[in-house]
Amino acid sequence: MDNPTPKNSTTETIAELRGWLGDRLSTAPAVREQHGKDQTWNPGAPPDAVAFAQSTAEVQRIVAVCARNGTPVIPYGTGTSLEGHFSAPFGGISIDLSGMNRILAVNAADLDCRVEAGVTRKQLNAHLRDQGLFFPVDPGADASLGGMTATRASGTNAVRYGTMRENVLNVTAVMANGQVINTGSRARKSSAGYDLTRLMVGSEGTLGVITEVALKLYGIPESIVSAVCPFPSVEACCNATITAIQMGLPVARIELVDAEHVKAFNAYSKLGLKVTPTLFLEFHGTEASAREQAETFMAIAGELGGGPYSMATREEDRQKLWQARHDAFWATKALMPGKDAFATDVCVPISRLAECVTATQADLEANHLYGPIVGHVGDGNFHVVLYCDRNDPDEYRRVKDVYRRMIERAIAMGGTCTGEHGIGTGKRGYLELEHGPALAFMREIKRALDPANIMNPGKNAAM
Amino acid sequence: MDNPTPKNSTTETIAELRGWLGDRLSTAPAVREQHGKDQTWNPGAPPDAVAFAQSTAEVQRIVAVCARNGTPVIPYGTGTSLEGHFSAPFGGISIDLSGMNRILAVNAADLDCRVEAGVTRKQLNAHLRDQGLFFPVDPGADASLGGMTATRASGTNAVRYGTMRENVLNVTAVMANGQVINTGSRARKSSAGYDLTRLMVGSEGTLGVITEVALKLYGIPESIVSAVCPFPSVEACCNATITAIQMGLPVARIELVDAEHVKAFNAYSKLGLKVTPTLFLEFHGTEASAREQAETFMAIAGELGGGPYSMATREEDRQKLWQARHDAFWATKALMPGKDAFATDVCVPISRLAECVTATQADLEANHLYGPIVGHVGDGNFHVVLYCDRNDPDEYRRVKDVYRRMIERAIAMGGTCTGEHGIGTGKRGYLELEHGPALAFMREIKRALDPANIMNPGKNAAM
Repeated sequence: MDNPTPKNSTTETIAELRGWLGDRLSTAPAVREQHGKDQTWNPGAPPDAVAFAQSTAEVQRIVAVCARNGTPVIPYGTGTSLEGHFSAPFGGISIDLSGMNRILAVNAADLDCRVEAGVTRKQLNAHLRDQGLFFPVDPGADASLGGMTATRASGTNAVRYGTMRENVLNVTAVMANGQVINTGSRARKSSAGYDLTRLMVGSEGTLGVITEVALKLYGIPESIVSAVCPFPSVEACCNATITAIQMGLPVARIELVDAEHVKAFNAYSKLGLKVTPTLFLEFHGTEASAREQAETFMAIAGELGGGPYSMATREEDRQKLWQARHDAFWATKALMPGKDAFATDVCVPISRLAECVTATQADLEANHLYGPIVGHVGDGNFHVVLYCDRNDPDEYRRVKDVYRRMIERAIAMGGTCTGEHGIGTGKRGYLELEHGPALAFMREIKRALDPANIMNPGKNAAM
Repeated sequence: MDNPTPKNSTTETIAELRGWLGDRLSTAPAVREQHGKDQTWNPGAPPDAVAFAQSTAEVQRIVAVCARNGTPVIPYGTGTSLEGHFSAPFGGISIDLSGMNRILAVNAADLDCRVEAGVTRKQLNAHLRDQGLFFPVDPGADASLGGMTATRASGTNAVRYGTMRENVLNVTAVMANGQVINTGSRARKSSAGYDLTRLMVGSEGTLGVITEVALKLYGIPESIVSAVCPFPSVEACCNATITAIQMGLPVARIELVDAEHVKAFNAYSKLGLKVTPTLFLEFHGTEASAREQAETFMAIAGELGGGPYSMATREEDRQKLWQARHDAFWATKALMPGKDAFATDVCVPISRLAECVTATQADLEANHLYGPIVGHVGDGNFHVVLYCDRNDPDEYRRVKDVYRRMIERAIAMGGTCTGEHGIGTGKRGYLELEHGPALAFMREIKRALDPANIMNPGKNAAM
């Protein structure tokens, strides 16, 4: 059932591409290095060359040359992958899409837009602001929308607005045979044929290179209320979240920040919060409904020992709070100078969340490891940032063991090894544990659409 | 690129199956007929036999026998398809799943459940009511949840709660090689591997037989407000809808009913409504927020000439209103005794909706045809019920022409040939027009997962 290793005639490919790409094809070691290694513990591997594409037609031409020569094709957006998505273990051509950064259309009446794959989420939101619109999916990095589509990304707003899975209307992609397809119409729903859009979302470049994305947009809410609520325990945070979700409270953001993180925020962002597990929240609606939601949550929190509850409606107060949340990684890193930080990303049914988080905390403690936790708890998704000195083989082994047990625990609880970061090279070993016999069907699809296995080989379900 | 015609050795298959299914395998002409022809204008074709399955293991065994003999497998739920999904143009075994009607689990804390494919939506909702939960997807018929999954069904609540695409967490399916797979975990989101769940949703039995479905559930809202608002024109209805959607009003239902339908409702359900294009609405929330939403919409409607606006909060008043809406088909049919009714189902970007509806109405008028319209207008989806005397060849031709032009118009406007009914046998001719070169990739997937083309051949993207 394995996909073949691509037969790579990179020399011919580079010669052909250089002919028409000129200095938009680079084989400089520094450029190749930068396009082959992310910021994580995944071992990188540089591509043989980097092609800076400027249009779907160019990507099509590059892929056609690679297909003829059996050369691997690795799409590259902003390089913010957390799972080695853009490394080149079999060599090949990295297609850098960052130059494809045009916003092609914004249809305000339909609440949708069409962008090239290299447009970043912040670029899109800056463009939309004057029209009173926004795009809600917000991973930590200012990632490209093509990369976010390819990895099925999400972020803090997913509990209300969904992930890329729910927010991509269709994509344009260059397939392994060089054919350009569009995966769907602009209709909000359709029952016409197989859902190629959702197949491409999360396929991590292994089925085709996504060059354009049509996205759903939303009106900027009339009123936004942020809130911070300390709790006596992680369980209390989770139980408050479960209660809110169960009663249908349309919370826009509900983020768990553990005591370690609060400590780090206080030091890094000068917040002065009580050092205890805390929920950061946001409510969107009309003035009356956002306030009503915030007050409803206050009542829920109060019954579970949470509080004092502080609300912020002024934009600068809200920004300060969410900036601290977005800086979580840097805040904890500042407390652990010289250590490497490894991101983790499991997601479980919300009823198992408290149990999963506390079992993970106990495991960290038993192994004398520092692993602050943040979680998009409305979705049951949380991240432990595992700190480790990689020159200390014993600590490294303990970190790896805690990491593995965390994933096995999440899957055993009916969850997933990755809520939003993707598989890349880093989590390929867990696909079978999570999917069992279904993995073979993923591989059949891969083989059908890319028989020579040139599209991002070695990632996700691709061999 | 064509899938092969299955080589069918039905005689062997029937002999083998009868050995252990006994009288749960039927070859009675009436049973075969009922399992091969729906209520629409799609020509039916009876299967060679009907197997009444009671478990996933039984379905697996039936499929394994069929696979060995190259016998087509046609899944059957409640028989409420509108596009010939369960006809058997190449013969074969219809697997009737209506006996698989167990509700396997309801996880109130996680707002999810797991059901066998034969459970109907009304059965599930009756079961959930005491727990304060509901499942929102509501096609006209009391369809099976397996069939709704297979056809990517939706209904009147999709504008707020999404379609089956958004509400299926994972499925258990028997694939063409007899392997049973589960397509995902119970996590609300995941970036682990290809989205087989979404691939199975809408695949219409052509990639596998869905035997179990895990679904998202919702808390029954604290308050529900229904409203009826007449407008001077279809355009005004559409513009009010666009305004509401654009401002982020979380309307739960927003249904267009044209003047012809209002006339029919008044006669059939004794409603006494003003005969003009009308919106039927529903708002879900807390008491304050549902009321606020209803009042906000009243203000929008007022600016567009809509009104008088009548609200209903009492359950019996709301039920009467929505029962009339659900009886739309029978109401118009009562006005057209002896005529056949043909359902249509296009969906366009909402900005084009008024134009698409009015162009269709003009085409109906120019061709002297009766075609009342209802629409899930928040999604841009509408249905014309085309009335026709099939013994009048000229009228039949005019109906077919209006039907074709309606689909071509929708696709030209960036829409789809089917918002929720599916492709089945009826709309196969429009797949290429809508998807272009992407259709070839659907066929590659079909061929990869079902090389002998035994799974519901002749439907959707299957040849």
